[in-house]
Amino acid sequence: MSTATPVFEDVLAAAERIAPHIRRTPVVRSASFDKLVGASVFFKCDNLQRTGAFKMRGASNAVWVLDENEAIRGVATHSSGNHGAALAAAAATRKIPAWIVVPENATPAKLSNIRKFSPEVIMCKPGLSNRERGLDDVLTETGANMVHPYDDGRVIAGQGTACLELLEDEPDLDLVLVPVGGGGLISGTLLVVKALCPGARVIGVEPAGADDAVQALSRGERVILDNPQTIADGLRASLGAMNFEIIRREVSDIVTVSDDEISAARKVLESCLGQPVEPSSATVAAALIDHKIDAAGLRVGVILTGGNVAADQ
Amino acid sequence: MSTATPVFEDVLAAAERIAPHIRRTPVVRSASFDKLVGASVFFKCDNLQRTGAFKMRGASNAVWVLDENEAIRGVATHSSGNHGAALAAAAATRKIPAWIVVPENATPAKLSNIRKFSPEVIMCKPGLSNRERGLDDVLTETGANMVHPYDDGRVIAGQGTACLELLEDEPDLDLVLVPVGGGGLISGTLLVVKALCPGARVIGVEPAGADDAVQALSRGERVILDNPQTIADGLRASLGAMNFEIIRREVSDIVTVSDDEISAARKVLESCLGQPVEPSSATVAAALIDHKIDAAGLRVGVILTGGNVAADQ
Repeated sequence: MSTATPVFEDVLAAAERIAPHIRRTPVVRSASFDKLVGASVFFKCDNLQRTGAFKMRGASNAVWVLDENEAIRGVATHSSGNHGAALAAAAATRKIPAWIVVPENATPAKLSNIRKFSPEVIMCKPGLSNRERGLDDVLTETGANMVHPYDDGRVIAGQGTACLELLEDEPDLDLVLVPVGGGGLISGTLLVVKALCPGARVIGVEPAGADDAVQALSRGERVILDNPQTIADGLRASLGAMNFEIIRREVSDIVTVSDDEISAARKVLESCLGQPVEPSSATVAAALIDHKIDAAGLRVGVILTGGNVAADQ
Repeated sequence: MSTATPVFEDVLAAAERIAPHIRRTPVVRSASFDKLVGASVFFKCDNLQRTGAFKMRGASNAVWVLDENEAIRGVATHSSGNHGAALAAAAATRKIPAWIVVPENATPAKLSNIRKFSPEVIMCKPGLSNRERGLDDVLTETGANMVHPYDDGRVIAGQGTACLELLEDEPDLDLVLVPVGGGGLISGTLLVVKALCPGARVIGVEPAGADDAVQALSRGERVILDNPQTIADGLRASLGAMNFEIIRREVSDIVTVSDDEISAARKVLESCLGQPVEPSSATVAAALIDHKIDAAGLRVGVILTGGNVAADQ
């Protein structure tokens, strides 16, 4: 399944599969935020998800979809952040090993968040090629199942469950907004919205300093950014192949926000919701606050993707 | 001012006075909770207030209303819970001493929450008379200003600022619900609602095992319960004299909920809001969930009073 582009039914299957292992997160509203942006905004609080981020959904699906013979060999990935912690935590729910290849320049806080769930952390030199080489070594040695953070049908289907839950609580949305990094979350979201709420638009938001998705849509092909610059470190990745395929077909628009706008939006969100969110989560709020999206009078779903603030600073 | 029954203008003055020292807490909504109870519910999240409870408001007003000569002598109270921590924290904002008399049977967690803000903790034997004697000794020795947890005009005016902020965010409420213990919060709330939103009803909720307010309204005089039994330990106190005076004059109704209903409501709130609340805070949600109050189709303000869950268990 990891190499097949997922469809809506895969999200439904994922939801059933991972339900025992994830948290059903609340949808909350803020009167102050609604007034500020002139819309009715429904925040899906996956900042309150296990491990502090929605990544637990895709990782859990990837772990629990394995058959017994595959599972026994464990899972592996490279990550300096939330995906690594999520995959380690998901593996722990199935009591199988997880090897996480982590670049030496990962922040101590993120490293410790990964280590909380898995002792099998393998350090490598920074840079994508070093990380991939480190992971290749692990895969060769262990026979573990590789779980890519976003370019993986199992992961995309799992991430789609956040929007599935959102639409169960609020079926009549006009617009759904999600941050865009590698594209795992928006891909899963698109599958769900097109199936359940086809009249609604899905708009992605990415940091101006990591705007590969905007460039890719304009050029009609994926763009890999060498050195993206943004405080939203969860969104520095460029779109995966499978993700680009889904996004190109289904997305209504992708807009960008600056780091200053993201920082300001974080403060607004904390004041309106009383919850800290990662910069990645604040992108979407920034797009509403700074009128990058015309949402006046609309019912808007927003996925808050993570709350690992200490780990981000 | 502590002996004079406060009026609405005292709440306005308190709001200005304490603004630099407290947090303006968010008002949040939950689509799931709205559906469950069939009303539009606006939660004022004072569980996110400094020290974890709305008590910081009244304590801050009591500390900052003192003139220089009074303030230099410090403040004192007896408390086994949130008021003690709040008064110590408020005194710290003015860099004046606070003496907190704490009964020996206070939980270690609550004691440590008080000690976080003040080293001047004086232990005494449990029981109201021992606590009062311990406090008398402190007052004689230090000349500190006594700050009663609820039967005090400065405290009532401060507690009223929670509802003042709520109505600034949501001016058109039909109903405001608050838990009732000693009556500090509901007294302040009544002053605010009658002045700003006179068409709205204010209904108090108290635990069935500590229902002195219901009994007092029915008898027309205060009732002091010897040994109230409820998990909502923040609501075990009986109404103060000044509080009873305001409540009798202004309140629409007081209803009761059982400990089982409170426990169930806590789980619902945590699931709907993603935030832990104290049993005291859950009373009001329980009254809505269990239809003790007819709120169908109404716009309902609810003050979540505290989030010191660990300290409560």
